[in-house]
Amino acid sequence: MATIKDVAKLANVSTATVSRVLNSNGYVNEKTKERVEKAIRELDYLPNDVARNLFKGRSKMIALFVPDIMNPFFPELARAVEDVTRDHGYTFILCNTDDDIHKEIAYLNALQQKSVDGIIIVSSTITTSSIQKIKVPVIALDRIVSSDLPSITVNNRDGAREAVRYLQAIGCKQIAHISGPEEVSNTALRMQGYLDEVKNEHWFKPSYIQQGEYNPDRAMEETKKLLTKHPEIDGIFVANDLMGVGVLKAAKALHIKVPDDLSVISFDGIALGEMITPSLTTMAQPIYDLGARAAEMLIKRIKNPNQKIINEEIEVELIVRESTRARS
Amino acid sequence: MATIKDVAKLANVSTATVSRVLNSNGYVNEKTKERVEKAIRELDYLPNDVARNLFKGRSKMIALFVPDIMNPFFPELARAVEDVTRDHGYTFILCNTDDDIHKEIAYLNALQQKSVDGIIIVSSTITTSSIQKIKVPVIALDRIVSSDLPSITVNNRDGAREAVRYLQAIGCKQIAHISGPEEVSNTALRMQGYLDEVKNEHWFKPSYIQQGEYNPDRAMEETKKLLTKHPEIDGIFVANDLMGVGVLKAAKALHIKVPDDLSVISFDGIALGEMITPSLTTMAQPIYDLGARAAEMLIKRIKNPNQKIINEEIEVELIVRESTRARS
Repeated sequence: MATIKDVAKLANVSTATVSRVLNSNGYVNEKTKERVEKAIRELDYLPNDVARNLFKGRSKMIALFVPDIMNPFFPELARAVEDVTRDHGYTFILCNTDDDIHKEIAYLNALQQKSVDGIIIVSSTITTSSIQKIKVPVIALDRIVSSDLPSITVNNRDGAREAVRYLQAIGCKQIAHISGPEEVSNTALRMQGYLDEVKNEHWFKPSYIQQGEYNPDRAMEETKKLLTKHPEIDGIFVANDLMGVGVLKAAKALHIKVPDDLSVISFDGIALGEMITPSLTTMAQPIYDLGARAAEMLIKRIKNPNQKIINEEIEVELIVRESTRARS
Repeated sequence: MATIKDVAKLANVSTATVSRVLNSNGYVNEKTKERVEKAIRELDYLPNDVARNLFKGRSKMIALFVPDIMNPFFPELARAVEDVTRDHGYTFILCNTDDDIHKEIAYLNALQQKSVDGIIIVSSTITTSSIQKIKVPVIALDRIVSSDLPSITVNNRDGAREAVRYLQAIGCKQIAHISGPEEVSNTALRMQGYLDEVKNEHWFKPSYIQQGEYNPDRAMEETKKLLTKHPEIDGIFVANDLMGVGVLKAAKALHIKVPDDLSVISFDGIALGEMITPSLTTMAQPIYDLGARAAEMLIKRIKNPNQKIINEEIEVELIVRESTRARS
């Protein structure tokens, strides 16, 4: 097997230069870089960490379970987990579970057999007993799985309260809520935050809450029914951005002007919210930070499985865009 | 280990009923289903395929390499690969490579050590020699890697020609092109398709082609420069939908009306193109079919490694939406 010295010799540079190219740190002249990369290809050189792992007969691997790869929130989260795990020399793999307990158990078993080093789980369905059988560290992300399992989440309830208070501050008088699916822990928290602010209002009706599935299509259907039945609604707090897209589509279909006649605020802060017209006002989760923190926590756990880890709650932040009217 | 009979006994149903619940096929009364699921949980029963694989000391696994998990095209593709591989009893994992040869080689080695059964690769950077060292079947998807490697792609060049001809048919007189990154094989094909239609036009200038990176931000910057320098441009063929989003943003920033003053057509057919306003006219790839065909091809290869496999080219389809003006 070719060594770093062989590469350096062929490229006519020092091993330190090869190392800088491999790790993309420090300055390397563009032409030198090309020469080094050519030598790496010609010799089929494997960088040290891979070679070391091959020699040890194993390669370090970390997995992230997400419930819906089609919701851009999760690829954005995955991006962060990948960056951090890679910085620590781990290979990162992504598993899409559809929040299906059978798929989750199949993944847990398959990955344990493949000697995965640790797993980060976003799940509403996994059971504590399934996780206890897994002999590698597990961290819960975005959704709390059980009190035993270290978790990273955001302040869902307070964030929801802030969203509703913002709608009130800009003058909305009848505020509805499109919630997430029942089985997801943050659905209840975001709904509670909404209720904290509106349950004592004289105008509040339970039918102002309609349930979606964290995807645009169902949210569009529910919003059409809601706004047809309750044309007085002038503000909607939507439990995630992807459903916010559906709410905007429903308003458009019903010829209701956003934000003039209806203000919409959602939750998540995915890049998509900025791309659409009107762009979505949202309670933004620091998605990248969330993923990065979970990865750091997991790696700490892998290095020292007995270390006590404290759950973390990260704050969301209001981002005002075009889907809410200006303060009156 | 609990068997299907133990589950049936505890739930007081037949094994056929347990099987129907596990496979979600055939009618099962809701209460019976709950009882079966409870028994599965209590006994920690693993469905047959998982148990069988555990017994054999291995679990079947297939991986998909994608260059950019943040481009919704790839999660949509992954969804299809996952569905088909799962139907055949494989666990599916997703690897994000950033089109980085070092990451790709690290993944190939790591997965080979973990006894992956087959790999589907979307790549512009992987070398034939890296793949030849891998002892498991590999299929190229979306981008051709080498003539040795079976591939599934779309008719990029003809699709691009159709896009440009559509712009001409609706009356566009000066048509520009925002291309993909140089190293991606479909970039050249889509650009050739554009050139096939316009290179002999009296108005054509090489500076009508600007290069993007298959992401919105860079495409927005390039389009701003393009439209500022060439205000006569009234149609743009954009090499992917995600860059189409950037082109629409650039037009908005420059107060150019789409589709009245500028018609935009892109390529891919991701769901996002329908969500934005104006929605994107596009040459839609049958994304789900592409992923599903690649998965079927790979599984065929795994079962019979010596079987000759013929490359497949699937056709794209014009979907007219709001970003192009009506035929005059």
